[in-house]
Amino acid sequence: MKATAKAHTNIALIKYWGKRDETLILPTNNSLSLTLDGFYTTTTVQFREELTEDVFFLNDERILDEPYRRVSAFLDLIRKMALREGSYAEIHSNNAVPTAAGFASSASGFAALAAAGSRAIGLKLSEEELSRLTRQGSGSACRSIYGGFAEWQMGNEIDGSDSYAVPIAPQEHWDVRVAAVVLSDVAKDVSSRAGMKRTVDTSVFFDSWVNSIPADLNEIKAGIMSRDFTKVGQTAEANCLKMHATTLGAAPPFTYWQDSTFTVMQTVRELRQQGIPAYFTIDAGPNVKVLYLPENEQQVQETLRQVPGVADVILSRAGQGISYLDEA
Amino acid sequence: MKATAKAHTNIALIKYWGKRDETLILPTNNSLSLTLDGFYTTTTVQFREELTEDVFFLNDERILDEPYRRVSAFLDLIRKMALREGSYAEIHSNNAVPTAAGFASSASGFAALAAAGSRAIGLKLSEEELSRLTRQGSGSACRSIYGGFAEWQMGNEIDGSDSYAVPIAPQEHWDVRVAAVVLSDVAKDVSSRAGMKRTVDTSVFFDSWVNSIPADLNEIKAGIMSRDFTKVGQTAEANCLKMHATTLGAAPPFTYWQDSTFTVMQTVRELRQQGIPAYFTIDAGPNVKVLYLPENEQQVQETLRQVPGVADVILSRAGQGISYLDEA
Repeated sequence: MKATAKAHTNIALIKYWGKRDETLILPTNNSLSLTLDGFYTTTTVQFREELTEDVFFLNDERILDEPYRRVSAFLDLIRKMALREGSYAEIHSNNAVPTAAGFASSASGFAALAAAGSRAIGLKLSEEELSRLTRQGSGSACRSIYGGFAEWQMGNEIDGSDSYAVPIAPQEHWDVRVAAVVLSDVAKDVSSRAGMKRTVDTSVFFDSWVNSIPADLNEIKAGIMSRDFTKVGQTAEANCLKMHATTLGAAPPFTYWQDSTFTVMQTVRELRQQGIPAYFTIDAGPNVKVLYLPENEQQVQETLRQVPGVADVILSRAGQGISYLDEA
Repeated sequence: MKATAKAHTNIALIKYWGKRDETLILPTNNSLSLTLDGFYTTTTVQFREELTEDVFFLNDERILDEPYRRVSAFLDLIRKMALREGSYAEIHSNNAVPTAAGFASSASGFAALAAAGSRAIGLKLSEEELSRLTRQGSGSACRSIYGGFAEWQMGNEIDGSDSYAVPIAPQEHWDVRVAAVVLSDVAKDVSSRAGMKRTVDTSVFFDSWVNSIPADLNEIKAGIMSRDFTKVGQTAEANCLKMHATTLGAAPPFTYWQDSTFTVMQTVRELRQQGIPAYFTIDAGPNVKVLYLPENEQQVQETLRQVPGVADVILSRAGQGISYLDEA
């Protein structure tokens, strides 16, 4: 009744941006990501007879409010699958995802929770089943089941049964790296969830965004297969710009970018003009992630560190999928 | 056979962004502008029997290459209308439009040229005829025939006969002001003409942009009529953001913005948070124009001057339409 799992966060190269069902977390388009070695969550779940409710520790601290409720509601799904309603667990979750890096720890968090929780309760889920379950905790987390490149297939069913991620290429396929550019003095005006909803509901560009995804996916998957860094980088960067353009067409319009976000984007373009292949991508916040190749690591890192408004640059390789850790 | 006309430039609040006919300069959407008192061109045209070609002076300097060819080609249109092919003119044009302010002097330039040239050759054109003629020199110039607010009606005819500007409200209607924020260290990667064409041809957002214009026009015209500054400002700013979003959806994507462009936009938002109504608009370049009301002039100006990367702030009131100057 006890299991420990480790899951890495992932960075979307083709963005998840818009829900068609808020409760089941069903997206309006397929998305594609790279799992990152440097950022992960390790979670232990132990079901214990004597408990009358779930008990959740995050980084060794007991949590009584959010995200406790969300974690417990997610365990309800697992209990229901295992026909074990009324069984409660002690959950210990440790994040190696620095908040400042601007990665959602919810991706690695819910992937690790789904893996440890389902195993602890005695379920033997396939990767597909695990991804589908994970999706209901946090949408983008469903891609973190796999290492390397993974695609979340949006599916068509109203119950979400065909909405889960599939592996595209394992991390051994290609040594592509990501620099997380940490900005100093970050203020977030619009939460990513509220911004996504406002964009879906009001942006004049939203339909065009959705319609443009299949071509981007074909392009980037061809690039991944042939290890064509230019193709992958250009497609990811263009996809990110389109996603952020949709917020400019919302009513009222808004942007997740800050001054220094813009400066980092310009710096990446300048790197390319100097012959260094590097491409940026940005999620629903001001931080920037930069894709690069191992041979350019030093120059990319040094250049980004010199940008005004940049507090830190954290490097990561491609990471592996879910792993289960033996108990001592 | 001699006439002098003065025309002011204008700033589009609903943007002209996309041509449906490159030669006749026919737009894909209506646009709406405010004519600006601070920036103008004065042009004298004199047809002289002894000339065998047009002679063009810009700011007292004889011009032999561009824009000479464009000016002479425009006089061809006037000669054709007057059935006076073979008559050539001496043209003296003086710009009070500082290049650094980022205003297209082509708007005031072609409006003044059309007015002085048509009068010098003996044509008596209505404002509608003058605007239609002016449009063929430079699209946005057709709005500079009028003072205050003017709308360029795109028209439907293939020959452009119904594509010209009409007055919406004279400058006496409302004392709205504009600060031209001059950025230091401006580098323009993509020319506005090339960028417009690339966007029309490739942007996934272009159709949505065009389809969103009628609602913006209704909104801003209602705001102008009722002197509702919030409505006019919000609509203009949102329209500008949509225009710039279309460039992010082009293939390859691009932007006219620079770091300091973004900083000025943030500063304007911060002014609003402090209770100062101010709204930005940006054309196909990095410079920013800020709309404000007379009572906030000092604070708007001081705040903008303190933004890093801002070299100068030039203020303007609403301007009048074409005027003809008596010869001494």
